Amino acid sequence: MSWTNLRNSELKERAARVIPGGMYGHESTALLPSDFPQFFQRAEGSRLWDVDGNEYIDFMCAYGPNLLGYRDPEVEAAVQAQMERGDTLTGPSDVMVTLAEQLVGMLSHAEWAMFCKNGTDATSMATVVARAHTGKRKILVGRGVYHGAAPWCTPGPAGILSEDRGHIVYYRDQDPQSLADAVKAHAGDIAAVFATPFRHETFRDQSEPDPTFAREARRLCDIEGAVLVLDEVRAAFRLSRDGAWAAFGVRPDLTSIGKVIGNGQPISALVGAENMRNAASSIFVTGSFWFSAVPMAAAVATLKIIRESDYLERLERMGQLLREGLAAQAVAHGFGLRQTGPVTMPQIFFADDPEMRLGYFWTAAAVRRGVYLHPYHNMFMNAALSEADIAQVLQATDEAFDLLKAQDRTQLPLEHPPVRGRLERAALLSA
Amino acid sequence: MSWTNLRNSELKERAARVIPGGMYGHESTALLPSDFPQFFQRAEGSRLWDVDGNEYIDFMCAYGPNLLGYRDPEVEAAVQAQMERGDTLTGPSDVMVTLAEQLVGMLSHAEWAMFCKNGTDATSMATVVARAHTGKRKILVGRGVYHGAAPWCTPGPAGILSEDRGHIVYYRDQDPQSLADAVKAHAGDIAAVFATPFRHETFRDQSEPDPTFAREARRLCDIEGAVLVLDEVRAAFRLSRDGAWAAFGVRPDLTSIGKVIGNGQPISALVGAENMRNAASSIFVTGSFWFSAVPMAAAVATLKIIRESDYLERLERMGQLLREGLAAQAVAHGFGLRQTGPVTMPQIFFADDPEMRLGYFWTAAAVRRGVYLHPYHNMFMNAALSEADIAQVLQATDEAFDLLKAQDRTQLPLEHPPVRGRLERAALLSA
Repeated sequence: MSWTNLRNSELKERAARVIPGGMYGHESTALLPSDFPQFFQRAEGSRLWDVDGNEYIDFMCAYGPNLLGYRDPEVEAAVQAQMERGDTLTGPSDVMVTLAEQLVGMLSHAEWAMFCKNGTDATSMATVVARAHTGKRKILVGRGVYHGAAPWCTPGPAGILSEDRGHIVYYRDQDPQSLADAVKAHAGDIAAVFATPFRHETFRDQSEPDPTFAREARRLCDIEGAVLVLDEVRAAFRLSRDGAWAAFGVRPDLTSIGKVIGNGQPISALVGAENMRNAASSIFVTGSFWFSAVPMAAAVATLKIIRESDYLERLERMGQLLREGLAAQAVAHGFGLRQTGPVTMPQIFFADDPEMRLGYFWTAAAVRRGVYLHPYHNMFMNAALSEADIAQVLQATDEAFDLLKAQDRTQLPLEHPPVRGRLERAALLSA
Repeated sequence: MSWTNLRNSELKERAARVIPGGMYGHESTALLPSDFPQFFQRAEGSRLWDVDGNEYIDFMCAYGPNLLGYRDPEVEAAVQAQMERGDTLTGPSDVMVTLAEQLVGMLSHAEWAMFCKNGTDATSMATVVARAHTGKRKILVGRGVYHGAAPWCTPGPAGILSEDRGHIVYYRDQDPQSLADAVKAHAGDIAAVFATPFRHETFRDQSEPDPTFAREARRLCDIEGAVLVLDEVRAAFRLSRDGAWAAFGVRPDLTSIGKVIGNGQPISALVGAENMRNAASSIFVTGSFWFSAVPMAAAVATLKIIRESDYLERLERMGQLLREGLAAQAVAHGFGLRQTGPVTMPQIFFADDPEMRLGYFWTAAAVRRGVYLHPYHNMFMNAALSEADIAQVLQATDEAFDLLKAQDRTQLPLEHPPVRGRLERAALLSA
């Protein structure tokens, strides 16, 4: 096999000297199988090339932003046209108004939009809007749910004070009774209830969007006068062309959206209902690059494709093909495979794999065969994936299953001992 | 005169329906003279065009990011080349390592770099690194100093809890004795001392970088074991090609840098000394677009120009020409003008103008003559400004002084009554 990672290794050595830990944040490969490349050189459509020139069909999609395929021609054309006019200026371009109008037109619960850069900007802004609106303090979030990496929500405890979370209250994610209990315990001081459209956490099986939970969250917020914040940073436009809970008739007060809005251009948003407008107008939030025109032009082009193309149906069809193919291969090789959540955002674990020895071996084998799968983070389908791509993927995963089956399970390496602890904590959250 | 603002007015009406307050953040014109345009259509070099096609020589530079001139050809070429390969991918590009190496090579106190998007990302990250390093809680900041728009630091109180700032301690900005008092009062629990290289706050006269304050801040941090954070988000590379306090021999432990790194592409950074590396490695911070390759490629190109060109000397020469020209015009027209701080970041106030009637009239007259000056925020020189530009600017400002002199001062409009309160608060901070 021609797969090599020499250049990646050299870069990791150089990076270790000038970047803390060699890399940080969600794109760090520190906990991944050692074959996973850290550095990439280019991407096009469904394909990604690492710095050694290895080509992958990529199911991480930059951890979400790649919705339509890397370098989608229509989005790129909009980017080029705007770049020739200007990007970061002394004020916004008219495209900001157009973008807000279009987003508000597409999301049935939204009457206004504010733009920012990353998901954390939008979720943090939601806490401030909710507190300004209610005059209350408590923010209820699902335990173990990722809402970003600011002190109030980062999953990493280093450098975080207990006071940073003094008014963060945890309920059991996606559980109506636990939410009801938390609301009761803090009644009178609740600013907001945060939720994600379904469970999509690292190291955990996903859930499906649940109308019972969605409606109960809405009902409890209405009774309490609390703000319902739906965090769609990760899931937006991969479940629906509207908000994720619109199909249940549930309208959040605020929705944070990120990642896909500009198909990879840096932009996120907080959108809200009419009753939140005054509070949103009262707060002071900003960023040097929040009003840059190029990401907004990319977003206008992306939203047009979302409205007018069958991208979502293609995501679903390819996701279904992948899921069915992997399920059949797992059965044929005698492995139990848990594939959970919406097919457009796959999460795959092996049964009976408490230290992730199977999952690590299998995804590493897939990576060496040109398929970038993730052993513990949910993946993302993109609209550039073709049936031929999925067939190529399944060829590679079949070989990976063959290899795995040929291994002595007791001899499989335990690459990252901390993974066991993470799996155990995740299991406790789900127990 | 052909100056019109019809299209801007239409856009503001549309924006008011779909964006809270019609606009938010630092680029909102809500407090500016009513002639100031809110929306822009393009920019090139030293020039900016609003949506009505009015052309300006722009001294706001997108509130900082435009260092070399809008759409600098070398930076744009680097952006185009990287865009053809890819931007937001499943991991960083090798350009991230190159960028970190170059930044570390240029900043004498820096041994590592972490990249993010906006200034607030970098300053907030600094609080977490400092707390992780020291195990202490207090963050000392200059009263009234802008370090970003997160709950711990935003100047807007709406939606902010007292608990968000429970461990933020204020000292009198740029005052060694006040800092010494604050350090003494909280000795044993101080994580960090924040400072800006000089005072550059809205509604206030600026200061010059002060070696006495810089050295005392370093000395106090050394005695106390606290982390010295120099916030260069606004001033980076407009005072020096190295850190702003390097000329004084003062090495901060952490420096936040933003705005100019990519000449308008969205990227900011936190850089640090060797003794901060472990703490920086221990925290979890990230963002969907923090590892995008295009802004990093733009930054590599920008830093090369910073190292190899005379951009800084040109900023200084043009800034000096502008300052001298305006000073002479003010004297000739019988006005007192306070021009404070480094010439590369001008701040201009009229003497005896407690409600900013003079400043508002004069800057509005300049705007209508194609010169975008700001009445209360510091401005920024860029390297695309030519002597011919400055001459054109001084022609316009001379006309504005003529007009102002012809006015009955008692009849000048008071456009925004809240401005008086802001000026008064600023005066109290400086008293």
